[in-house]
Amino acid sequence: MTSTQKPLIGPKTRLCMSLSARPSPFGTRFHNKMYEELGLDFVYKAFSTTDLPAAIGGVRALGIRGCAISMPFKEDVIPLLDALEDSASAIDSVNTIVNDDGHLTGYNTDYIAIYDLLAAAKIDPSTPFLLRGSGGMAKAVAAALKNSGHEKGTIVARNEKTGPALADLYGFDWAPTTDGLTAPLIINVTPMGMQGPEAEMLAFDEEIIKASDYVFDVVAMPAETPLMQTAEKHGKTCISGAEVIVLQAVEQFELYTGIRPERALIEKASAFSHAVAREERLQSLK
Amino acid sequence: MTSTQKPLIGPKTRLCMSLSARPSPFGTRFHNKMYEELGLDFVYKAFSTTDLPAAIGGVRALGIRGCAISMPFKEDVIPLLDALEDSASAIDSVNTIVNDDGHLTGYNTDYIAIYDLLAAAKIDPSTPFLLRGSGGMAKAVAAALKNSGHEKGTIVARNEKTGPALADLYGFDWAPTTDGLTAPLIINVTPMGMQGPEAEMLAFDEEIIKASDYVFDVVAMPAETPLMQTAEKHGKTCISGAEVIVLQAVEQFELYTGIRPERALIEKASAFSHAVAREERLQSLK
Repeated sequence: MTSTQKPLIGPKTRLCMSLSARPSPFGTRFHNKMYEELGLDFVYKAFSTTDLPAAIGGVRALGIRGCAISMPFKEDVIPLLDALEDSASAIDSVNTIVNDDGHLTGYNTDYIAIYDLLAAAKIDPSTPFLLRGSGGMAKAVAAALKNSGHEKGTIVARNEKTGPALADLYGFDWAPTTDGLTAPLIINVTPMGMQGPEAEMLAFDEEIIKASDYVFDVVAMPAETPLMQTAEKHGKTCISGAEVIVLQAVEQFELYTGIRPERALIEKASAFSHAVAREERLQSLK
Repeated sequence: MTSTQKPLIGPKTRLCMSLSARPSPFGTRFHNKMYEELGLDFVYKAFSTTDLPAAIGGVRALGIRGCAISMPFKEDVIPLLDALEDSASAIDSVNTIVNDDGHLTGYNTDYIAIYDLLAAAKIDPSTPFLLRGSGGMAKAVAAALKNSGHEKGTIVARNEKTGPALADLYGFDWAPTTDGLTAPLIINVTPMGMQGPEAEMLAFDEEIIKASDYVFDVVAMPAETPLMQTAEKHGKTCISGAEVIVLQAVEQFELYTGIRPERALIEKASAFSHAVAREERLQSLK
């Protein structure tokens, strides 16, 4: 385990935290590393809970500065907050709470990060897309596509309720499978390729990948999914889930601390956090 | 500021905390130093709150392992807990909560520490005492004296309600002042000598100190009160508030972690924590 020097926790140290059924190791490492590098008197810790209202009440009452919200709380948390910022109200999903003296505002930095990554990749908004998935994160991606100007695209989801509903919400098409479909922009927002039972699965057939120009995989753990590996092999422009997870964490960091870190520092903290997360993944497999 | 190496905070790190209107620097330093020395995956942080029920709900919902309770919450917290251990029910005052999977039990480690320090000093229970003070901590001391076998003593307190009430509760005498009184065991449980407006005050006249054998000062910040200095000058057997604060923290540490630390380690962590606290006190005066 990599060790690191950090300042003493004192009476004025501020706490930020995450709340999820199964805490991911990335956020804890990333935020604590950034605090350390910048000498900020903050500490970050992951929590899980079976009582969301009491947990959020605790965030408010204890003056916890910020709280990342993950599965399965992103929608249930909304009525417990005092305000929603546009990024959260656009998709009715909160992944970040900022606590200003007991006033809790919900944000969605996944949405912000995806929107910014699409903009940074300079993909023409007239580019049609295939988006696999119809869960909360797929909604964030679909909304970011819509608000980036994309009007032609297909939501691919076997679920005959959530798939068509997401497509209708933003005026996109729906298809239950990728059979016979191709597009210049293909996006995976399913667990295919994620650490676990679907780790070996390729989210799009190789022929679809070959026919595309841009490949975006929201899976972050690991960053090197079969989809990303195949897309790189064919020289496609790739956006990985590792970029999403880092950028959304940077957005959170700025909301909590008011500081927008330098790119070099983000890369350092990100490389550190991914390395620790990878090591922990390997250890958990032993 | 003294710095120290500590392990990374990870997904399995457990949080312990304190809750008070004005967090003292000692507990945070002491517990974190002990975790570091023993390589325990714990972290400790102080909080204050204006909403005690929500804060305790948060302790329960977030699985925070332990919570120290200070002024002004020691009595108000009782109805929010699931059980009281004898040390807390004896004096209707909680300074420590242990969270076992959402089941919160209240303890009073001040009471435990005072009882143990009286026993360690081998003071004959027939020794009469003067106890100055009638607040929550005075109640803990009076109960510890009573349960140590002491039957002869006087509660000295100007307050004509709380003074006689505390004396009656345990069958002791009451006096509004120390005028004309002496005893072999004298105990200060008022803020006299504490950092702040009463820092220069001597809790008992020098003649009373000279006439005593044992001098016990519950004031911990600083440990070197005028009372302790005068008692040492006259060669009296002293028990200081620094010993109380350390021993009660050791009791908390054992309740939270299940580990009873070695004496040498306690002294190391205690010296470190008092040194940091002293430095912070000096800095706050600048």
